[in-house]
Amino acid sequence: MTKTRRFNLTESQMPRQWYNIMADMPNKPLPPLHPGTKQPIGPEDLAAIFPMELIKQEVATDRYIDIPEEVLEIYKIWRPTPLVRAYNLEKYLDTPAKIYYKNESVSPAGSHKPNTAVPQAYYNYKAGVKKMTTETGAGQWGSALAFATQHFNIDLKVFMVKISYNQKPYRKSMMNLWGAEVVPSPSNLTDSGRAILAKSPDSPGSLGIAISEAVEMAAKDPGTNYSLGSVLNHVLLHQTIIGLEALKQMEMADAYPDVVFGCFGGGSNFGGISFPFLGENFRNGNKTRVVAVEPASCPKLTRGQFHYDFGDTVGLTPLLPMYTLGHNFVPASIHAGGLRYHGAGAIVSQLLKDNLIEAMSVKQNETFKAGMIFAKTEGIIPAPETSHAIAAVIREAEQAKKEGKAKTILFNFSGHGIIDLAAYDKYFEGKLEDHEVTDAEIAESVKELQQLV
Amino acid sequence: MTKTRRFNLTESQMPRQWYNIMADMPNKPLPPLHPGTKQPIGPEDLAAIFPMELIKQEVATDRYIDIPEEVLEIYKIWRPTPLVRAYNLEKYLDTPAKIYYKNESVSPAGSHKPNTAVPQAYYNYKAGVKKMTTETGAGQWGSALAFATQHFNIDLKVFMVKISYNQKPYRKSMMNLWGAEVVPSPSNLTDSGRAILAKSPDSPGSLGIAISEAVEMAAKDPGTNYSLGSVLNHVLLHQTIIGLEALKQMEMADAYPDVVFGCFGGGSNFGGISFPFLGENFRNGNKTRVVAVEPASCPKLTRGQFHYDFGDTVGLTPLLPMYTLGHNFVPASIHAGGLRYHGAGAIVSQLLKDNLIEAMSVKQNETFKAGMIFAKTEGIIPAPETSHAIAAVIREAEQAKKEGKAKTILFNFSGHGIIDLAAYDKYFEGKLEDHEVTDAEIAESVKELQQLV
Repeated sequence: MTKTRRFNLTESQMPRQWYNIMADMPNKPLPPLHPGTKQPIGPEDLAAIFPMELIKQEVATDRYIDIPEEVLEIYKIWRPTPLVRAYNLEKYLDTPAKIYYKNESVSPAGSHKPNTAVPQAYYNYKAGVKKMTTETGAGQWGSALAFATQHFNIDLKVFMVKISYNQKPYRKSMMNLWGAEVVPSPSNLTDSGRAILAKSPDSPGSLGIAISEAVEMAAKDPGTNYSLGSVLNHVLLHQTIIGLEALKQMEMADAYPDVVFGCFGGGSNFGGISFPFLGENFRNGNKTRVVAVEPASCPKLTRGQFHYDFGDTVGLTPLLPMYTLGHNFVPASIHAGGLRYHGAGAIVSQLLKDNLIEAMSVKQNETFKAGMIFAKTEGIIPAPETSHAIAAVIREAEQAKKEGKAKTILFNFSGHGIIDLAAYDKYFEGKLEDHEVTDAEIAESVKELQQLV
Repeated sequence: MTKTRRFNLTESQMPRQWYNIMADMPNKPLPPLHPGTKQPIGPEDLAAIFPMELIKQEVATDRYIDIPEEVLEIYKIWRPTPLVRAYNLEKYLDTPAKIYYKNESVSPAGSHKPNTAVPQAYYNYKAGVKKMTTETGAGQWGSALAFATQHFNIDLKVFMVKISYNQKPYRKSMMNLWGAEVVPSPSNLTDSGRAILAKSPDSPGSLGIAISEAVEMAAKDPGTNYSLGSVLNHVLLHQTIIGLEALKQMEMADAYPDVVFGCFGGGSNFGGISFPFLGENFRNGNKTRVVAVEPASCPKLTRGQFHYDFGDTVGLTPLLPMYTLGHNFVPASIHAGGLRYHGAGAIVSQLLKDNLIEAMSVKQNETFKAGMIFAKTEGIIPAPETSHAIAAVIREAEQAKKEGKAKTILFNFSGHGIIDLAAYDKYFEGKLEDHEVTDAEIAESVKELQQLV
């Protein structure tokens, strides 16, 4: 009982402001462009689908932004979340490294996603919005937003990638339980969906298509707004409560990270854990390394191009400056559905371009092995997405052992894998593939970018 | 932010002893009997399947029993657990009642079960045991024990009720992930299983049959021990850490419960939350009501007989003094698999016989409605078992509203229902049955009891 394992903040110690890295990053991200005019978009271009408060946050440069009282009250359902010292994992790896993780799996939806779902629902509610749309892949984001919207009596329609809709019924049940309507995408409800179905009636769907459907429906109905679970600046802003809490908790633990890891899909859990530590780097000259971990099968950060691209497949969003594999890139069907996205958020992309963060990729079987080790040692079963970060942490801890260095590692435990157990079965049966993209595939997929801007 | 929602203890505030209600209850439970001689059994009768430390705890009368340091270290993976004020539920019910719940769903296995799985695995490990067996219904207990045994390098074989084995693959995956072997029961591995299969080759299995198989295998192999997840005194002892923490946390909340609710299967989560409060009743004259909530389809406490009966179906266990529906009683297939057990633990049975606790029953649809309300208001999706306690709490809170009384209610949130979402689907589709047992069925089922002692 001498060693403290979990560092808990009291509710009154919970941060009351989000951290906006735009205030401190050396080069600001390039502006989003209107795909027709190729000119920077203004607030009015987004007003059809987002409430003004979120549009303001998208371009805000204040260092701190107040978290509304009503949002804090709902955060208290699961926040502050624990920071945990992974003694058992350290022992198993026989490493001199000190490993800490921020456990975001304790939220109602089982991941970090409600951190932004709640404020997004709140700002829409304050703007009088009664109906919202969104997309979801495996269901993590859709269930988080369903949890959030029902608190504010907003009707939610979720376009769920069809293959997941059929294969992962539990997330659909969760969304239904929280009052959302779930539609398999591509659907007949939108022009985008109908166009895809006309070409390929058996399309399994993709995140990019589902985004197109959700955006289209919101854009066409003045009473309906849209919500995105990653990529955008305001989404990452809301997620910084993870890192802000972790900063306080590392202090409680009398430690400070030499390196911070987060898995990477669009950037929301990664930005959430790392931006506050990057802020310390920028303002105070700290030298914490920050590493984004992506799947080898969807390597936009490590092998993509820095270019303007659409956020969706059909091309309904503004053009965003990002590391991308091209908006028509179809990632292999790995189990980490939340990481199967062609692009990266504008802030993260700029930071990577400026060499202020690092990126690496790992293959699927290595991530499941890491997840299994974590479940056996630390007790919690990680989501396949989260296991990407864990795989990187294990590599780092093994390196620390080789070097005999007692470095301090922090990572974000972004979600649990209790609804992903079938994927673990496949791992144990040796049936998981290690997809890797060829150079030719990437070259083909990024060709379209040259025509955009 | 003025209202505190969660009351967290620090790790150093975690209790270091379990509470043994045997020290304080007015009438001790009757002794278990040998089914052949009808005489009280001695420690040697249990030594074939339990380590001596657990046998000692089964009959101990000390008020407090030390929790081993190694067990405390593993408890720290998820303990202390939060005590939560259910403000959102109170608001929804518009009740003057103050509702608190102890959240045991935060454990690796998602329920209170690891509280006893870990010490049971530990004492077996200390006794040099390398192999263990157990049974599981829907899989909550089996996954908890798998989590525990792998920490001590003990091989575990779990006999899982066949219908659940086929219908609930996620719990099986979880057990496999933690290194356990899972066998559908009835199986061909035991005489008990073979006898059942000879009579009914398509038997869906039952908890009673699975216990018979697990006990038989342990009894026949000197190197193998058996573990039970409820009913027995030492199991309930280990679970008292729930109520001991809650006592401290209610003090932090500056409150004390007028009534404590727990759902009831064999008694482990119920005893865990309530015994420390009953101890206060017995020693200090407090008057907290303690209420066990069972399914209307398996009503041993409210409609069973107080009598000696077997703990399993085949009749391999000692005869235990209990409220029972008869060991051949087959409960309807409700989704709360953990409450589908014919009997009740000896201590709880004695307390009920002495009118020191209360019991009530609820029907399935009422429990799912309660679970849905809880998921919508408090955010966490309850296990169907837990929803029995919630249904009772809602009734009590509505009564408090009628009476205009600001009574304080505490209940144990024994587990989450994330792997039970298919059951919620059925509830929403209106497909859940409200099974209730007839008097004739009970009369038929308890007939066999007269022949036992």
